[in-house]
Amino acid sequence: MEEIVIKSSMHDYTIIMGEGIRSQLSKFLSKDYSSILIVTDENVGELFLEDVLAGLDSEHIFHTSINAGEQSKDIATFYKLQTVALECGLDRNSLIVALGGGVVGDLAGFVAATFMRGVDYIQMPTTILAHDSSVGGKVAINHEYGKNLIGSFYPPTAVIYDVETLSTLPTKEVRSGYAELVKEALITDQVTLANVLNADLNNLIPSKLSIDLKAGILKKAAIVQQDEKEAGVRKYLNLGHTLGHALESYHGYGKLTHGEAVAIGTLFSLHISEDLFNTNLPYKEIYDWMKVNDYPLHIKLLSDTEALIKKMKADKKTVDNNIQMVLLETTGKPVNRIVSDEALQNYLHSFSKRLVEV
Amino acid sequence: MEEIVIKSSMHDYTIIMGEGIRSQLSKFLSKDYSSILIVTDENVGELFLEDVLAGLDSEHIFHTSINAGEQSKDIATFYKLQTVALECGLDRNSLIVALGGGVVGDLAGFVAATFMRGVDYIQMPTTILAHDSSVGGKVAINHEYGKNLIGSFYPPTAVIYDVETLSTLPTKEVRSGYAELVKEALITDQVTLANVLNADLNNLIPSKLSIDLKAGILKKAAIVQQDEKEAGVRKYLNLGHTLGHALESYHGYGKLTHGEAVAIGTLFSLHISEDLFNTNLPYKEIYDWMKVNDYPLHIKLLSDTEALIKKMKADKKTVDNNIQMVLLETTGKPVNRIVSDEALQNYLHSFSKRLVEV
Ligand SMILES: NC(=O)c1ccc[n+]([C@@H]2O[C@H](COP(=O)([O-])OP(=O)(O)OC[C@H]3O[C@@H](n4cnc5c(N)ncnc54)[C@H](O)[C@@H]3O)[C@@H](O)[C@H]2O)c1
Ligand SMILES: NC(=O)c1ccc[n+]([C@@H]2O[C@H](COP(=O)([O-])OP(=O)(O)OC[C@H]3O[C@@H](n4cnc5c(N)ncnc54)[C@H](O)[C@@H]3O)[C@@H](O)[C@H]2O)c1
Ligand SMILES: [Zn+2]
Ligand SMILES: [Zn+2]
Repeated sequence: MEEIVIKSSMHDYTIIMGEGIRSQLSKFLSKDYSSILIVTDENVGELFLEDVLAGLDSEHIFHTSINAGEQSKDIATFYKLQTVALECGLDRNSLIVALGGGVVGDLAGFVAATFMRGVDYIQMPTTILAHDSSVGGKVAINHEYGKNLIGSFYPPTAVIYDVETLSTLPTKEVRSGYAELVKEALITDQVTLANVLNADLNNLIPSKLSIDLKAGILKKAAIVQQDEKEAGVRKYLNLGHTLGHALESYHGYGKLTHGEAVAIGTLFSLHISEDLFNTNLPYKEIYDWMKVNDYPLHIKLLSDTEALIKKMKADKKTVDNNIQMVLLETTGKPVNRIVSDEALQNYLHSFSKRLVEV
Repeated sequence: MEEIVIKSSMHDYTIIMGEGIRSQLSKFLSKDYSSILIVTDENVGELFLEDVLAGLDSEHIFHTSINAGEQSKDIATFYKLQTVALECGLDRNSLIVALGGGVVGDLAGFVAATFMRGVDYIQMPTTILAHDSSVGGKVAINHEYGKNLIGSFYPPTAVIYDVETLSTLPTKEVRSGYAELVKEALITDQVTLANVLNADLNNLIPSKLSIDLKAGILKKAAIVQQDEKEAGVRKYLNLGHTLGHALESYHGYGKLTHGEAVAIGTLFSLHISEDLFNTNLPYKEIYDWMKVNDYPLHIKLLSDTEALIKKMKADKKTVDNNIQMVLLETTGKPVNRIVSDEALQNYLHSFSKRLVEV
């Protein structure tokens, strides 16, 4: 078991990583809650809900399940969960547990942030990607105009990460999670990046995964402690997300996983960076690794570039209608840059060409 | 002009009270916002929106109006305002201005708290009641099961209170606001209470109103600075609100104003307190003052006491399914007490009798 303590402006919290800890929840509760509501999705509930329930002995334990997938991060499901919480009789002294991937975590976290003006919640991530979403206190739902547009900064009380649960993840979701690990490595240093690119996603060894996960969490932890509210360095974690979010929204949530979209967005950022800073970045290494590991690199980018750019503008980093992107001067050295609409048009064309050429 | 500075865990903010300051907004902006969205309701917009717009000279100024009344504090209007904000191109550097009573303040404040995980907002209260709702950072919308059940603690950047706007308030709303002033006086001391009960609501003199308002704001400010997140003394501000909120919800929002409902709830708390603490409280003085000032004291309380008690339980102060109420040991000395369902039944009966008897 590993423990990492995160300081936040509201309160500190601990990330606990270990094997089989999903059935030991009561051990990690810091106080006596009047009731507990576990929020999960259909897939994860089927696999792990019983284990979690087995580790809780209080009387007032409730659970509810949402449909799996990004579509559930909407205002209707948000309101429905508030209704469920009220019908279960939750009060200000209650706890919400988010058991699942980033969708469950972001959604249940936002419910916790706003239920009776805020109750405690625990993140129990069950995807690789959720190593990212469960740390740092960003919670949100989507608006039809874009991702995560309605939300809060609201840190969890604890993050209980049972890495055993990752063994049932479909490969598509392994790919999705590794895209965020690559992103974190790119803003860390070359050694970390080389390590992550060693992973063979079709034959992933649990011990290898744990090492990569821990590196990702440590990087994320360091950044969010330095800049909780995303006024500065935390923005760098959005590397790949400007085009990534636009692609997710453009193609319809669920078609492309979050990480797959971010993977393409990351390549795009490298592509622009190489041109803008007139330098060589590990574009090819990453491209090759993504190709071997079956990332959907043949996505159509040019059918309607204006719509795509409009989507990119719905990004929360947009300032005065200008798209701000995270770029890389070199591995480990991210920067924020405004990229004009015209430049973006051109880059989308050259990137699109490069994606098929290589 | 008067200024009161409030310290909060997020940031300090200033309450500015004065005459005619609604048209000087740009003077009070602490930074350059990329855009400003004024949220108001149909009544207030008609009366004061132009004045406010006249005091702003930036390019990106937008405004939107909601239907007047408690019904607008719902999830649909919340989402609609998010949409409007996105369509106006608001970003993280934008400002939301809540121009109106407590409904606009609570709703627009909650939109600000959650739009792109939080943007600045300014409260411009235009009702007496909003002296209470605009200070302290509580923002929320209602759930069909009860009032203010979905919300945040999210302090405004400033409160600009133009007391001139209060001259157009209908008497019903003057009554509503004074109920909160009476509540605040009751948890302050006898002198403050005597002062407030001097007010003749049918012939209210502006200078008298300003004095009472300032006393209310100072009390509220003192309490929220001591206990921002309502872990202790801030609960005392809920005097009268357990039955009050239940009545509002039971009779359908809009029938009874918030303050009218709180007025009855306050009398109910005094009624219980006198019995429980075997003491004399200023029940009769307050009752008489409320009668002279046309508070709706002949409300039916007994048609369905179980439904009413169920509504009282939806209160955020409920712990382990027990109703917690703010009671008074003596004027200026509030306490929290659990009151059993059975006792409540009895008190509702004796109170109902006393309301018609006197
Ligand atoms: N809050 C943040 O800081 C942050 C950071 C990154 C991403 N996110 C958000 O995270 C979301 C994506 O998260 P995700 O990729 O975990 O998606 P997800 O929660 O939808 O999970 C992906 C799929 O895997 C299934 N699943 C989950 N755990 C499983 C397991 N152990 N075994 C088998 N199947 C399992 C789920 O049911 C789902 O079908 C996006 O909405 C994104 O915006 C948030
Ligand atoms: N956040 C808090 O701490 C807190 C505290 C107390 C009350 N509240 C909330 O405040 C709300 C009630 O606020 P309210 O009583 O101000 O109601 P309101 O906002 O509905 O205003 C009452 C009516 O007066 C009209 N009006 C407003 N200003 C006017 C003016 N200057 N001239 C003429 N008409 C005007 C409005 O259009 C409305 O019809 C409730 O929802 C309550 O829950 C919140
Ligand atoms: Zn991401
Ligand atoms: Zn009130």
